[in-house]
Amino acid sequence: MNSYELIHPKTHLRVLSRYEIQQLRDVSSQAHDLVRRCCYAVLSAGSQNDSYVEIEAAYQPFDIHFEQEDRGLVLRLINPPASAFVDNEIIRGVREQLFSVLRDVLYAQDSIIKAQRFDLNNSEDITNAIFHLLRNADVLRADQLPNLAVCWGGHSIPRSEYKYCKEVGYHLGLRGLDIGTGCGPGAMKGPMKGATIGHAKQHNRNGRYIGITEPGIIATEAPNPIVNELVILPDIEKRLEAFVRMAHGIVIFPGGPGTAEELLYLLGILTHPDNATLPFPVIITGPKETEDYLQAIDRFIGTTLGAKAQARYQLIIDDPQAVAQAIKTGIHGVKIWRQQQKDAYFFNWSLHIEADFQHPFDPTHEAMAALNLSLKAPGHQLAADLRRAFSGIVAGNVKADGIKRVQEHGPYLLNGDPQIMAEMDALLARMVANERMKITGEYTPCYKIATVNN
Amino acid sequence: MNSYELIHPKTHLRVLSRYEIQQLRDVSSQAHDLVRRCCYAVLSAGSQNDSYVEIEAAYQPFDIHFEQEDRGLVLRLINPPASAFVDNEIIRGVREQLFSVLRDVLYAQDSIIKAQRFDLNNSEDITNAIFHLLRNADVLRADQLPNLAVCWGGHSIPRSEYKYCKEVGYHLGLRGLDIGTGCGPGAMKGPMKGATIGHAKQHNRNGRYIGITEPGIIATEAPNPIVNELVILPDIEKRLEAFVRMAHGIVIFPGGPGTAEELLYLLGILTHPDNATLPFPVIITGPKETEDYLQAIDRFIGTTLGAKAQARYQLIIDDPQAVAQAIKTGIHGVKIWRQQQKDAYFFNWSLHIEADFQHPFDPTHEAMAALNLSLKAPGHQLAADLRRAFSGIVAGNVKADGIKRVQEHGPYLLNGDPQIMAEMDALLARMVANERMKITGEYTPCYKIATVNN
Amino acid sequence: MNSYELIHPKTHLRVLSRYEIQQLRDVSSQAHDLVRRCCYAVLSAGSQNDSYVEIEAAYQPFDIHFEQEDRGLVLRLINPPASAFVDNEIIRGVREQLFSVLRDVLYAQDSIIKAQRFDLNNSEDITNAIFHLLRNADVLRADQLPNLAVCWGGHSIPRSEYKYCKEVGYHLGLRGLDIGTGCGPGAMKGPMKGATIGHAKQHNRNGRYIGITEPGIIATEAPNPIVNELVILPDIEKRLEAFVRMAHGIVIFPGGPGTAEELLYLLGILTHPDNATLPFPVIITGPKETEDYLQAIDRFIGTTLGAKAQARYQLIIDDPQAVAQAIKTGIHGVKIWRQQQKDAYFFNWSLHIEADFQHPFDPTHEAMAALNLSLKAPGHQLAADLRRAFSGIVAGNVKADGIKRVQEHGPYLLNGDPQIMAEMDALLARMVANERMKITGEYTPCYKIATVNN
Amino acid sequence: MNSYELIHPKTHLRVLSRYEIQQLRDVSSQAHDLVRRCCYAVLSAGSQNDSYVEIEAAYQPFDIHFEQEDRGLVLRLINPPASAFVDNEIIRGVREQLFSVLRDVLYAQDSIIKAQRFDLNNSEDITNAIFHLLRNADVLRADQLPNLAVCWGGHSIPRSEYKYCKEVGYHLGLRGLDIGTGCGPGAMKGPMKGATIGHAKQHNRNGRYIGITEPGIIATEAPNPIVNELVILPDIEKRLEAFVRMAHGIVIFPGGPGTAEELLYLLGILTHPDNATLPFPVIITGPKETEDYLQAIDRFIGTTLGAKAQARYQLIIDDPQAVAQAIKTGIHGVKIWRQQQKDAYFFNWSLHIEADFQHPFDPTHEAMAALNLSLKAPGHQLAADLRRAFSGIVAGNVKADGIKRVQEHGPYLLNGDPQIMAEMDALLARMVANERMKITGEYTPCYKIATVNN
Repeated sequence: MNSYELIHPKTHLRVLSRYEIQQLRDVSSQAHDLVRRCCYAVLSAGSQNDSYVEIEAAYQPFDIHFEQEDRGLVLRLINPPASAFVDNEIIRGVREQLFSVLRDVLYAQDSIIKAQRFDLNNSEDITNAIFHLLRNADVLRADQLPNLAVCWGGHSIPRSEYKYCKEVGYHLGLRGLDIGTGCGPGAMKGPMKGATIGHAKQHNRNGRYIGITEPGIIATEAPNPIVNELVILPDIEKRLEAFVRMAHGIVIFPGGPGTAEELLYLLGILTHPDNATLPFPVIITGPKETEDYLQAIDRFIGTTLGAKAQARYQLIIDDPQAVAQAIKTGIHGVKIWRQQQKDAYFFNWSLHIEADFQHPFDPTHEAMAALNLSLKAPGHQLAADLRRAFSGIVAGNVKADGIKRVQEHGPYLLNGDPQIMAEMDALLARMVANERMKITGEYTPCYKIATVNN
Repeated sequence: MNSYELIHPKTHLRVLSRYEIQQLRDVSSQAHDLVRRCCYAVLSAGSQNDSYVEIEAAYQPFDIHFEQEDRGLVLRLINPPASAFVDNEIIRGVREQLFSVLRDVLYAQDSIIKAQRFDLNNSEDITNAIFHLLRNADVLRADQLPNLAVCWGGHSIPRSEYKYCKEVGYHLGLRGLDIGTGCGPGAMKGPMKGATIGHAKQHNRNGRYIGITEPGIIATEAPNPIVNELVILPDIEKRLEAFVRMAHGIVIFPGGPGTAEELLYLLGILTHPDNATLPFPVIITGPKETEDYLQAIDRFIGTTLGAKAQARYQLIIDDPQAVAQAIKTGIHGVKIWRQQQKDAYFFNWSLHIEADFQHPFDPTHEAMAALNLSLKAPGHQLAADLRRAFSGIVAGNVKADGIKRVQEHGPYLLNGDPQIMAEMDALLARMVANERMKITGEYTPCYKIATVNN
Repeated sequence: MNSYELIHPKTHLRVLSRYEIQQLRDVSSQAHDLVRRCCYAVLSAGSQNDSYVEIEAAYQPFDIHFEQEDRGLVLRLINPPASAFVDNEIIRGVREQLFSVLRDVLYAQDSIIKAQRFDLNNSEDITNAIFHLLRNADVLRADQLPNLAVCWGGHSIPRSEYKYCKEVGYHLGLRGLDIGTGCGPGAMKGPMKGATIGHAKQHNRNGRYIGITEPGIIATEAPNPIVNELVILPDIEKRLEAFVRMAHGIVIFPGGPGTAEELLYLLGILTHPDNATLPFPVIITGPKETEDYLQAIDRFIGTTLGAKAQARYQLIIDDPQAVAQAIKTGIHGVKIWRQQQKDAYFFNWSLHIEADFQHPFDPTHEAMAALNLSLKAPGHQLAADLRRAFSGIVAGNVKADGIKRVQEHGPYLLNGDPQIMAEMDALLARMVANERMKITGEYTPCYKIATVNN
Repeated sequence: MNSYELIHPKTHLRVLSRYEIQQLRDVSSQAHDLVRRCCYAVLSAGSQNDSYVEIEAAYQPFDIHFEQEDRGLVLRLINPPASAFVDNEIIRGVREQLFSVLRDVLYAQDSIIKAQRFDLNNSEDITNAIFHLLRNADVLRADQLPNLAVCWGGHSIPRSEYKYCKEVGYHLGLRGLDIGTGCGPGAMKGPMKGATIGHAKQHNRNGRYIGITEPGIIATEAPNPIVNELVILPDIEKRLEAFVRMAHGIVIFPGGPGTAEELLYLLGILTHPDNATLPFPVIITGPKETEDYLQAIDRFIGTTLGAKAQARYQLIIDDPQAVAQAIKTGIHGVKIWRQQQKDAYFFNWSLHIEADFQHPFDPTHEAMAALNLSLKAPGHQLAADLRRAFSGIVAGNVKADGIKRVQEHGPYLLNGDPQIMAEMDALLARMVANERMKITGEYTPCYKIATVNN
């Protein structure tokens, strides 16, 4: 691998203004730093390393420069990871993702974060801002029928679960469904690989493999190059909203705290009275050997959010074809409903999302300790706080800021109703036992459940 | 023609956010008014009427409503002009232009005018803003070699000149050149029609017919439906800058004060020392019978801006093939130069434009009277003020605000050096005599040249 | 113009076998001679010369060689006509037509004429052979709705008629109709130019301009480069059958004997009882000044083929928009009918064509004299013989063999019923007077009407 | 699965003439029978059954009818295998292959077998006929650089070898190479699946998966639906010639007698003196556990065809990336060579193939017994006869005619030089032991090696 690589865009021939190139070049700017980090993650495609410390060390010598040429912007990579190249040529999937990073970071900085038109404390404006970000990334397609199956699940999963995800993806692909995931390894990669084969059998050359990520997580969940539409949202809350507003149906595979966060977010929203009649197919599924674990999650939902929440998803064990059929049928219902409501196919405007689920949660130790994990809290508030609890654990496991905080102040302390805390403790223990917390190295918990009865 | 027409987008399947739809619906908003006016102009395709008063009367009963459907935005037209329809179906060229209007007006309002990031008093920021507007309209194509011939010339021209413009367009099209114009009738339409046939003979299905306009002029210079890339800049100065930064070569046909404005703008810029070595092919041309007129213009340039300005263009009389060959050769030089300079093909960043040519000029009677049309003024300043003088006359002839001012306060009074004023008077008199001022009705001058002898 | 030009294919990247290249190279083969002649015709694009003798002289020094390269066949042109080139580069429309010539001549030689599978004396086999030729030329498109308007008319017409043809083409193009013609000048070129502008306004980049010709006529009716689908049938009878089986409607402009031949062919078929209920829109039209002439034709049809034949067409004077609307409406009827009959859109299998109209007619003096132009003959036989009479006159005017025969043996002698002969004489005299016989030079009749004095 | 299915074409919108439809409908025609059998094979996609008897039983109730509709031909399937459908909709890959079957069978019958132009006893004509068949199937692409890696290997292979084939395909795909195979299961499917993922990572939407088969083998080697270009040659010899003339490089995986046949065919040709300088990359490869087997094959080649033959391939054990790099490098050499020779990229005209390898071999017991497996025979003749010997064994194992013969007359008797026979016996014994002969059921040898010592 040469340590210098010039990368010309192929598809994303997006042209940049001098103003934007200057921003990228200004090493003191936030844009420069974000772009450098995200590009490194993209170039680490296929990496199975989620150890923040090790990645950070490899990251230091990497840099990226920007040059204008007659046909547009050219990237000069310094010390890029070798995995992004085949016989010294960059993988095209990776190349295009690099330009997606520039596009999204620049747009978010300029047109969302610094722009006057969006008041990011206002719920409606947040949703509009997400729409503008997705539109700018060209992922909102007015010419497509509802067919996006979003797949959530762990990045750290055993081989057998990975194969199961692939199998589900295959059956989704055979049915013409496109795939959206968080775009890292494990359950985020398997469905895309499977769908690729399904699409190939259907001679479908236009399969969409949409990766939705955010700067905090991208380093440890490097996008896989199959992703042909990568979009980077500014934070986890906007990323989750992008998922649920774009998805026409969601499949959830076994995962760790990140998947729990996603599930709680989703159910917190779907159980809101305003969304009661909104069709939204959700399937929780895994291979035979994950049945116990998935039922534990089901029970946890039952305990915390109740039967109303359980009614919003279907549990299917070890049957990839049934999963694909259920999603396909569910999405057909979504299409009918949107037609009746004259609602857009490409963005679920009707879904009501409470501000609680939209405002960025910064998992400081104080914030984590202050979460109100009580059965007395209103349903959606409990869901929101549970979501935040798991979000904090993800941060403590694999995100830069979270890891530093835990290194400094010790594990996060969580407390709440004994019943909830006991269930949560058990669930987290299972995750640890199943090695769902991290891929790399032995796991030291970044959380502590406050002793309940004292 | 039904008075209600639902228009679905075909190509420009641009999706809009709730925020944007709300802006469009809000009849008190500037966006709504601009969109309504520009859409009416687009629907008046083929109209040869440039009488502001008559257009205004026809415009009153027209309205446009905006509705969201599953596939995106739908327009409901109320009392649209019949000329936009063939057997009750809207002409697709017109349909797509309607959606271009929405796109540009919304973007200009939100991302340029109200945005913090551009200081529109700063020269560099103006240029960046224009770049962002053009990029948003998707007219900056990184994948194309230099091949854009911009054609300027009168909207009100005799049949023989129109045929000549078509013939030049034909020879440009045969040579693979794309066409950009101000997108109205006359010399703005002829080259596109000619190039269409040239492209057809070359089996070139991707010919670009770029129309660059602005809200002030669009009503009286209705875009013709061949235009397949319409972009609306906020004002005449930004429109002119868009022209010269996008063009790889410019052909100027005989025209009235608008064409004079364009020529003075262009030469004012090209004679700036910073642009001395920049290749920029400019051809002034017309059929045999316009030779006198074109030589009068040439002399006017010689008197006012001098031989240095005359050296920047080539005068070709009655030879469409020679014009096309000269432009093609000139553009080849532009390509070489941009490659050497690593300058973009799609936007002429290197062209230096003084702030004087960028700031919007509002032709009030005071502003017109204050113009310093003196041979003692530095060259580019004189060019800038001459450009403003003709710009004001255009406004007085065909733009809403200008017409109202002249109705109220009488003709603009212009004064300056006797020599300049005499030449200018003669030139304007020729324009009047040639009926280049207006298409419709008898012409009453909107200007008065101050008596010279004092 | 260099006398050597290497032509690489662009679109028609059809690969040839060694067997085929050998055939092309073998100067003694019929294929070689046909290809050379047809290629010369294609390269003479835009030529207005229909003098066989002059063309022949210019043709002598021309030759074409065939070379194999890594990407396929390359043509080397020796002394090609300059009109095919723009700034020393071949016009792409011309380039593609050269490869169409190779394709059709080779296929006709190998797969139709020499093949066992088609018995070219058998009516059904002739139709199948034509289908195979058209399919091989890729002009039968299963994915298209009926929209092909075939335009017939004179190659030698005055400017005003040419403009009228263009205008009709424009209105057809605006309505999304594709154009098929005999691909020469005059009424064969005008509708294509007009439709090009109509398609451009509809932003229709996939307009089809289908030229259907045959080796005997192509030299004097050089295809125009707008034709983007050129197909060469082996003889005039197969060419006419290709027209009527592909057309969804036919517009007939004023023309000379060639147009009369076409009209008689068409009406001879449409008046056959088996075709009585088959919808087939036919419009005869021209500008105001051709009204007399068109009514003379109408009367001639009335006299010879009767009111039944007159009922199969509509006469529209001086109203291009009405013509286009009538064709559009008629084609809609064709679509409905084909759906009901489960008949193909792309080939009119149901149209019954008598063998009389299919077998090649060789206009020797004996054959011409033997024609039975009698009102006592059954309707379709009279039509067939009248068709042959005009076909012979076309040959005597502009086809190599016919011209040589007339030079040798004097004018063709035609005889028949006095009434028919008188009408025919008058009609032909009008054609001569209107200069519809030939473009170039003074016209010496190639026919003589036998003295009527029974 | 409904027992009636109407299948409309999607991509292969090839239109058929009445003549052709009649041929298809005529149940007594050879075309009808061939089409029915091949379509059944295509519909059996994914079947792992290679037992001719079982397949035959399932085949009986199946039938296919042909109907004309406005958009073209429609197929009505009676009792099609369920595996071709997903949720009652036919897999598009299968659908398109059905129409490929029609295309190839009709063309072979009409334009090759019955046509006069090809003398199928003449070597050069056979090659031209193959070219015409491939061109008609649109698999010869003048616009493509050399990049076709043909993969040969067993249809009956263990899981580990299948995974290895996939891995090689993945690395070929990552390098932009397209894949051609015999289109059955095992080593014919694995590389395509692998390349699909490789292409997806390179965002290559135009990957070609070319399946080349023949009516005799297609039943037991059902094409997999990833194949997006299926072509059916009339017999095994033409199929093999199609492979070697289209391939730019060949990878050979472990296989049974079919693979041995292919290898002997290839080496018999490549060792011909006329091909001595022709670059043609050949790699024999397999995972670690096949090393012994591959070395046995290598030794067999050494014994029979000598070191000259061994020099034409490279043996790479257990290194998919090295295989892909070697092929890529080799194909680069092919490209350079063809450019120098002005030889086509899409068809290897220069490769000399002796008539011995072209004429169909009908494996009767007499023909098998008469093979001259002697070291005294000239090298290429021995290769030709060895090829025939293995070809006969394939027939005895899985082809209808061969199986019936062996059922009737007992195993084929093979005899020849003791040394060859001993090596051959050992190699076949290994194939039996490794279960490479057949997938289904226990294997009873269809051959007998004549006792050596007499």
